[in-house]
Amino acid sequence: MTAPAGTASRIDALRQTVEQALDRALPSRSVWPATIHEAVRYSLFAGGKRIRPLLTLAAGEAVGGHAADVMPLACAVEMIHTYSLIHDDLPAMDDDDLRRGKPTCHKVFGEAIAILAGDALLTRAFHHMAALPAGESAAIAVRRLRAIQVLGEACGTSGLIGGQVMDLQSEGKAVDATELEGIHRAKTGALLSACVRGGAVLGGASAADEDRLSGYASAVGLAFQIVDDILDATEGAEQLGKTAGKDAAREKATYVRIHGLERSRAMARDLLSAALAALGPFGARATLLSELARLIVERRA
Amino acid sequence: MTAPAGTASRIDALRQTVEQALDRALPSRSVWPATIHEAVRYSLFAGGKRIRPLLTLAAGEAVGGHAADVMPLACAVEMIHTYSLIHDDLPAMDDDDLRRGKPTCHKVFGEAIAILAGDALLTRAFHHMAALPAGESAAIAVRRLRAIQVLGEACGTSGLIGGQVMDLQSEGKAVDATELEGIHRAKTGALLSACVRGGAVLGGASAADEDRLSGYASAVGLAFQIVDDILDATEGAEQLGKTAGKDAAREKATYVRIHGLERSRAMARDLLSAALAALGPFGARATLLSELARLIVERRA
Repeated sequence: MTAPAGTASRIDALRQTVEQALDRALPSRSVWPATIHEAVRYSLFAGGKRIRPLLTLAAGEAVGGHAADVMPLACAVEMIHTYSLIHDDLPAMDDDDLRRGKPTCHKVFGEAIAILAGDALLTRAFHHMAALPAGESAAIAVRRLRAIQVLGEACGTSGLIGGQVMDLQSEGKAVDATELEGIHRAKTGALLSACVRGGAVLGGASAADEDRLSGYASAVGLAFQIVDDILDATEGAEQLGKTAGKDAAREKATYVRIHGLERSRAMARDLLSAALAALGPFGARATLLSELARLIVERRA
Repeated sequence: MTAPAGTASRIDALRQTVEQALDRALPSRSVWPATIHEAVRYSLFAGGKRIRPLLTLAAGEAVGGHAADVMPLACAVEMIHTYSLIHDDLPAMDDDDLRRGKPTCHKVFGEAIAILAGDALLTRAFHHMAALPAGESAAIAVRRLRAIQVLGEACGTSGLIGGQVMDLQSEGKAVDATELEGIHRAKTGALLSACVRGGAVLGGASAADEDRLSGYASAVGLAFQIVDDILDATEGAEQLGKTAGKDAAREKATYVRIHGLERSRAMARDLLSAALAALGPFGARATLLSELARLIVERRA
């Protein structure tokens, strides 16, 4: 499966639409109390690649949905991703000074505001999902509620938060391959899966289509984390925009540490193949999803 | 308006129902990773008076709704209240060691887990609101979505979070009476109002009833904070279960500091009268709401 010419520029155009939607979804910097909105926007508009919103929109497209129906979740998942980065970077957690090539939120605004900025993004994500335009049908409300449930599950203690807890607790300990996969499925995979599943729900997917996309989401989610580990081990801070070699320094469990570099690369390639195979039944409507899987596995930062 | 005999025991019984619903709404302590669920339950079941869930259920009752339809929000507001306490108590924020007579979450579980426990409660609150039993009608889904919106607004940067930002920024500064009311309406009033308004929404209130209850909520919210300030200035740590005299020590803006003790007490009494007056049109169905207003203003801790 080769991406048709023009897919890359479609992704760029969609990314622009996401930027604009995110901008509209949040209070401006000048709204009182200004500090918190400055901090929220500092981290949300720090040059993220918007992989999660793109996956969400692409899943909606694969099931024949309208982009406008899916966009609220596309914005919400990026808010949640950003909240998790802000909180993970805090001194009490991973204690990181650099993120996407810029000082982390707490380095610029202080710890108290950084904690609150994360809280604000998490809150806004759910609030934004619940904001239904006047005159929207009850059927759309039901889909929104289901998407909120998918999102909430992914962000909770069996997903994003649970993964961070396990990650913190695994530092300096021997972690086997099964435990490592469990950590990553929770910490990274759950939210990526929620993008795909939630995008499908808002796009009006059948139960069968939702199931089919779960296979794709699961493979892409794991591949994403393996590539992350490979990049941490092989790229410099300048390229990554964050502290490099950090995993090894903190003795964190990583794929590279457990499986070695070459085996990790092979695993990522196999997962890409599995993801693309799961998209077969969707034909051309899944062009974006397949291109995004490729972007995720072949990325350099 | 005098509460009929039996209202106090009805409140006790409702409180028990809330405890059970909260217990069911959260993963047990043994669910992996156990630490986070222990921390969440440590703070959520630390002897809170459940004022917010009771207000929520009472508002639903005032508009003729079913308790079962309102309970998801009753649980959600207590989770959100608890999350805000955990995060406010952190060293980077108010740096409190004692809450409800027990060591604060971060003193027991460490800062990282306390941050994540707050995040988990905030996430679970919205997730819980979105969990609709199979076969529930689309009309109920629409109400749930509206209640999530009310809740999200109250917890965001114009409510709970904004109030905490303003509160932090007001420390050691001269704050006038108007600014002080703004801080408290955001920090305390917004969530209390959301309990009443959201409870009414889930109970199937008419727009007119929602408006009428807003007057009650607004008065009760402000009275709650004034009484809080009075108690901080007059009661000891043993009675309050938290560090006493903290506001004065940190030069925080409080009603007692700006208006003095006697004037503050008179303001709380006037607000109670206003709250009770707003309930007139609801007759006997508002018995619980009126009793709760009295409990809030006349409480000793």
